[in-house]
Amino acid sequence: MAHSRQRRLFLGMAMLAFLAIGPARAAQSAPERAALDLMPVPESVNLRDGRFRVDDSLSVGGQAAPGDRAFGAAARFMSRVAARTGIFLKQDFLAARGSAADGAVRYEFTRPGKLEPLEDESYSLIVNPGKVVLSAPTDIGVLRGFETLLQLLSSDQAGYYIPCVEIIDRPRFTWRGLLIDSGRHFQPVEAIKRNLDGMAALKMNVLHWHLTEDQGFRVESKVFPRLHELGSDGMYYTQAQIREIIEYAADRGIRVMPEFDVPGHSTSWFVAYPEFASAPGPYAIERRFGVAEPAFNPADERVYPFFDKFFGEMAALFPDPYLHIGGDEVEGRHWDANPAIQAFKKKRGLADNHALQAYFNTRLLKILTRHGKKMVGWDEIFQPGLPTDIVIQSWRGTEALVESARKGYQGILSNGYYIDLCQPAETHYLNDPIPSGSTLDEAQRKLVLGGEATMWSELVTPETIDSRIWPRTAAIAERLWSRPSVRDVGDMYRRLAVVSLRLEELGLTHLKNQGMMLRRLAAGPDIGPLEVLAQAVEPLKNYQRHSQGVTYTSLSPLTRFVDACAPESMAARDFRIKVESFISSGDRESAQELRKTLTAWKNNHTLLLPLIARSPALKEIEPLSLTLAEAAETGLTALAHIEKGEKPSPDWAEGGRGKLNEAAKPMAHAELAVVRAVGRLLEACAGPAGRGPVRDIM
Amino acid sequence: MAHSRQRRLFLGMAMLAFLAIGPARAAQSAPERAALDLMPVPESVNLRDGRFRVDDSLSVGGQAAPGDRAFGAAARFMSRVAARTGIFLKQDFLAARGSAADGAVRYEFTRPGKLEPLEDESYSLIVNPGKVVLSAPTDIGVLRGFETLLQLLSSDQAGYYIPCVEIIDRPRFTWRGLLIDSGRHFQPVEAIKRNLDGMAALKMNVLHWHLTEDQGFRVESKVFPRLHELGSDGMYYTQAQIREIIEYAADRGIRVMPEFDVPGHSTSWFVAYPEFASAPGPYAIERRFGVAEPAFNPADERVYPFFDKFFGEMAALFPDPYLHIGGDEVEGRHWDANPAIQAFKKKRGLADNHALQAYFNTRLLKILTRHGKKMVGWDEIFQPGLPTDIVIQSWRGTEALVESARKGYQGILSNGYYIDLCQPAETHYLNDPIPSGSTLDEAQRKLVLGGEATMWSELVTPETIDSRIWPRTAAIAERLWSRPSVRDVGDMYRRLAVVSLRLEELGLTHLKNQGMMLRRLAAGPDIGPLEVLAQAVEPLKNYQRHSQGVTYTSLSPLTRFVDACAPESMAARDFRIKVESFISSGDRESAQELRKTLTAWKNNHTLLLPLIARSPALKEIEPLSLTLAEAAETGLTALAHIEKGEKPSPDWAEGGRGKLNEAAKPMAHAELAVVRAVGRLLEACAGPAGRGPVRDIM
Repeated sequence: MAHSRQRRLFLGMAMLAFLAIGPARAAQSAPERAALDLMPVPESVNLRDGRFRVDDSLSVGGQAAPGDRAFGAAARFMSRVAARTGIFLKQDFLAARGSAADGAVRYEFTRPGKLEPLEDESYSLIVNPGKVVLSAPTDIGVLRGFETLLQLLSSDQAGYYIPCVEIIDRPRFTWRGLLIDSGRHFQPVEAIKRNLDGMAALKMNVLHWHLTEDQGFRVESKVFPRLHELGSDGMYYTQAQIREIIEYAADRGIRVMPEFDVPGHSTSWFVAYPEFASAPGPYAIERRFGVAEPAFNPADERVYPFFDKFFGEMAALFPDPYLHIGGDEVEGRHWDANPAIQAFKKKRGLADNHALQAYFNTRLLKILTRHGKKMVGWDEIFQPGLPTDIVIQSWRGTEALVESARKGYQGILSNGYYIDLCQPAETHYLNDPIPSGSTLDEAQRKLVLGGEATMWSELVTPETIDSRIWPRTAAIAERLWSRPSVRDVGDMYRRLAVVSLRLEELGLTHLKNQGMMLRRLAAGPDIGPLEVLAQAVEPLKNYQRHSQGVTYTSLSPLTRFVDACAPESMAARDFRIKVESFISSGDRESAQELRKTLTAWKNNHTLLLPLIARSPALKEIEPLSLTLAEAAETGLTALAHIEKGEKPSPDWAEGGRGKLNEAAKPMAHAELAVVRAVGRLLEACAGPAGRGPVRDIM
Repeated sequence: MAHSRQRRLFLGMAMLAFLAIGPARAAQSAPERAALDLMPVPESVNLRDGRFRVDDSLSVGGQAAPGDRAFGAAARFMSRVAARTGIFLKQDFLAARGSAADGAVRYEFTRPGKLEPLEDESYSLIVNPGKVVLSAPTDIGVLRGFETLLQLLSSDQAGYYIPCVEIIDRPRFTWRGLLIDSGRHFQPVEAIKRNLDGMAALKMNVLHWHLTEDQGFRVESKVFPRLHELGSDGMYYTQAQIREIIEYAADRGIRVMPEFDVPGHSTSWFVAYPEFASAPGPYAIERRFGVAEPAFNPADERVYPFFDKFFGEMAALFPDPYLHIGGDEVEGRHWDANPAIQAFKKKRGLADNHALQAYFNTRLLKILTRHGKKMVGWDEIFQPGLPTDIVIQSWRGTEALVESARKGYQGILSNGYYIDLCQPAETHYLNDPIPSGSTLDEAQRKLVLGGEATMWSELVTPETIDSRIWPRTAAIAERLWSRPSVRDVGDMYRRLAVVSLRLEELGLTHLKNQGMMLRRLAAGPDIGPLEVLAQAVEPLKNYQRHSQGVTYTSLSPLTRFVDACAPESMAARDFRIKVESFISSGDRESAQELRKTLTAWKNNHTLLLPLIARSPALKEIEPLSLTLAEAAETGLTALAHIEKGEKPSPDWAEGGRGKLNEAAKPMAHAELAVVRAVGRLLEACAGPAGRGPVRDIM
């Protein structure tokens, strides 16, 4: 799924913009546990006096043996402590030389956890000055506890320590996933692995791996090798690589659920097997994005033995109990145009294409069941009469989730977690699978298994995927793990900044690739003015990048300035907060800071021009940079008026509004993320009520 | 090999320092071809008027089909052009839809190249305003030509273009290698792959893969699985991964030659098979570095069938005609202590341990020959009577290379290319396998096949390996490819700066990981003062880091400030050049620039202190930072004296010298790379001859 999304491209921009940069919620008083930078926030945290010192005598022990999941987690814990602190630990943590059944840090668990929904992931952590004890029913709980322990690592003048604390923790939802779309843009093994590390750090437990799309068939099939040979441009995962990734994920307590999207989103299959399509071939791998028309032919009996063999092979390759069959966005035009399919519908009494797809799904369900898999699919697969062990993944809205729960079906939420849309973390964070006030009863609530962030990859390459996933997905991870009452947006952002830096330790490239991409654009090492502009800019939200006068295909370069910009600018957020604070308090200090920021933006254009002159690839950002400078100048004038207590001339104010409205428009596939806040300054000095609400601007 | 290096740890520091930061050679007049930023410099470049414009109509065609090596190179060429320029190319370069036998860029070759020494890698490139033709006898030549074409991509006000040019090119040496030591620190698949891309960009053609060491046995053996199971801490390459890397390398025209170092450097083998060692077990994986004593027992007949099976398996896995058996640094103490070995020597009339190792090598040679492989080994394997198709790799000096060539043996040079020693690119660049004035005759010269940069990994992790290899290895690549007369150091550095940025496009992390590492150390995003200090600092050269009061092991974190510093500071080099220029010319402009730089260094300490206070891991750099500030102050005073034409008091000068001598000492495992240049300023104002040569300082 992903695409009918594009049909809604022209949803009111104003509303979207409001969602994107709505006023920051007033920070609630942060609980003490939050001050610990823990994310996701544990169920219960009891902070005490005292510190467990971390020095070269740190040791870790437990009952696991080398090769076991918990042993590996303990070794990674030690390695990460050493990397972060620079301490030369004395313990040989890679080998269990002598007895490693105990240590200053002891972990204990009752049994190996199973990689399936509803498994126990709880743990408790007791830190005393001389001892850390991490206990859990399963080794998966131990993994979760080690991540918490790493987040507790702190420093003071005397060195590194872990504060004494008692933590009892368990997840609210059992299904906390990230979908990675390797179909539209292939993502190499290392991109998957480092994101698995990021997921584990945030206690996420499902990689939903979208492996086939119109743009590519990304898995090696030994039974039907022409599928990957002809359908992937050579960019597919070998079965050895898939096993490697499954093992890597399992070591981190993460399930890998594959998705093979049928009957639509399937052009790449038909390059090898046009005979299974609803319209005559030949077919070529699709390069454009959007909802393509090719679809499997449900009326052709040859299709089902083919799927039986194919899913049989995949069921053996992927150990997860679930297998996702997609099922979304079938256009049906090729079905309508095929007389044999029309005849089949009539003969079987299938009233419409929805019924035809239901028939197809029922046949697939039998195949999956025979191979021991439970079925997952997008909203569209829902139909009465399906067994209740299937899972519906909702991309269309929480209503669909509620509806299926009422009918006794399990569901996971993805609507509101579409991280490819470049919306702020806050939007995702406040999107609850079971919102307060939900009318579902206790039993129905249990059917809501959790949710998944979805990294659709139309505009995402291995170079940019991390910045599109992180750190915002950490906010979703917290929503799915922590209690529903944990929703202090300000505190979330405070901890998100810490998490973002720590994710770098795992090899994630969300921060460091910006410099690389800007250096490439500048064809030189000095990128200061580009960084200043990038911090004031965000990529266009939702599907707007697809209506900027060029057609993105899977071969288009994603190396523009906009691709180097983070989906959410923290600098812009800080600026907005300072503007609000200044407007409400009028203090000189805030004014000083705002003036400094605005002056830097104003002066940046002159500094940037020589770089633009040297690099044709930068030409498109000249208007963006100029507009930032002009908006900053408007902001400086407004600031001066407010400070002097003067009201500007109505003409100036009208002119300023006009300019800011222009400044809010898309340029270079991006938008200035600071315009609205400048508008707040303008209205604060020029508006009828002096400090009234924002009007006119956007 | 790698280790007796440590025995020479205490080689006169003064001499080493001089080698490391000797005065920059005066720039020779750069030939026009060099102004093109080509690296390595081609054999012949004829630049003409006119430009081949690069826009969205760019197309590429040739006789290769999808899946072929040249087709893949053409597709990567298009993808890299698109990435660098942001242009949406119209051609579907991943699929050969329709006829792709021609294009605006046409490539042609006569036959697929073989991955073995002496293969033809030549190519010619003719760029006209409307057409680019790339011709080569082999597809490997086509690959080399595409890299040149990418280096030619330029821009002007009208957009991107390739200058019209005729290039005829071929390598001077046939063996242009990079050794990667995956033994001491395991390097994951992606680290190998991205470095293969870097090698290909610099036209290098041999990955010498050091796969076994005291610290780890890194290759899966299906015949003797306990080797990797017990000898690797789980960090080894599966055979599937090895095949994947060999294929990846072959697609880039790069051979993969494995090294299995025996009979020494072999502790990790004995964890599984203590019975093959010369001293009784049990053995554990070695964590410390240096020359370990364990060695295979040449007197035990069971050893040879073992090697026969093992090398048989590896010979089938690695298609390269050569297999490297190491053979270096056998201590022999365990041989001396083993009565059975002593008896064996006596019985066989083997006079000493060298003779014993020669016996061992002769046995191995028979095994390799039986499995169709030619033997390569380090200097030590040389002995009379070996067949002349073996290759001697010289780590001890060019003399050894000359000696073996005189005796009719092929050789490759690594002495002088030890990039782990953190020496400047210049040192490696001027190190010629056949120096001018060599007394070798024509036939003997042909036996010098080339050379290899060696990335020994005692102090190198996946996080830092790229910065230890690049960009300096590009200078070695040029030495091995270009004519011996190409040795303009200034021009090499000019082009190296361009190459360094372009290597980033391939995923190499040598630039971007610095920011990540400094953010981790600072535990925060603002690292400006850390970057300023890092630019004035280089890691200790040669083996000095091993004598700084801590013992590095394979488990030690390599995440310190020193690890984030580049082996060669370009900022320090620029500063030295400006100092020399100012001293010789005395111009005001140079003085202004020097004052600006020195003032920044002087003021940096105050800015850095709050970061240090927050992070125990940064504590060690406080003296380093303070010393830089003090040295900068000395420099500023000297500069002022020179500008005023005043001579400072002898006391001040003496004090300054003393301080600079202190400042040149190791701190935090690093050294200030700018002290010598400050000393030049001091002597320029205080020295007896005013502008005499540097004295006293270091």
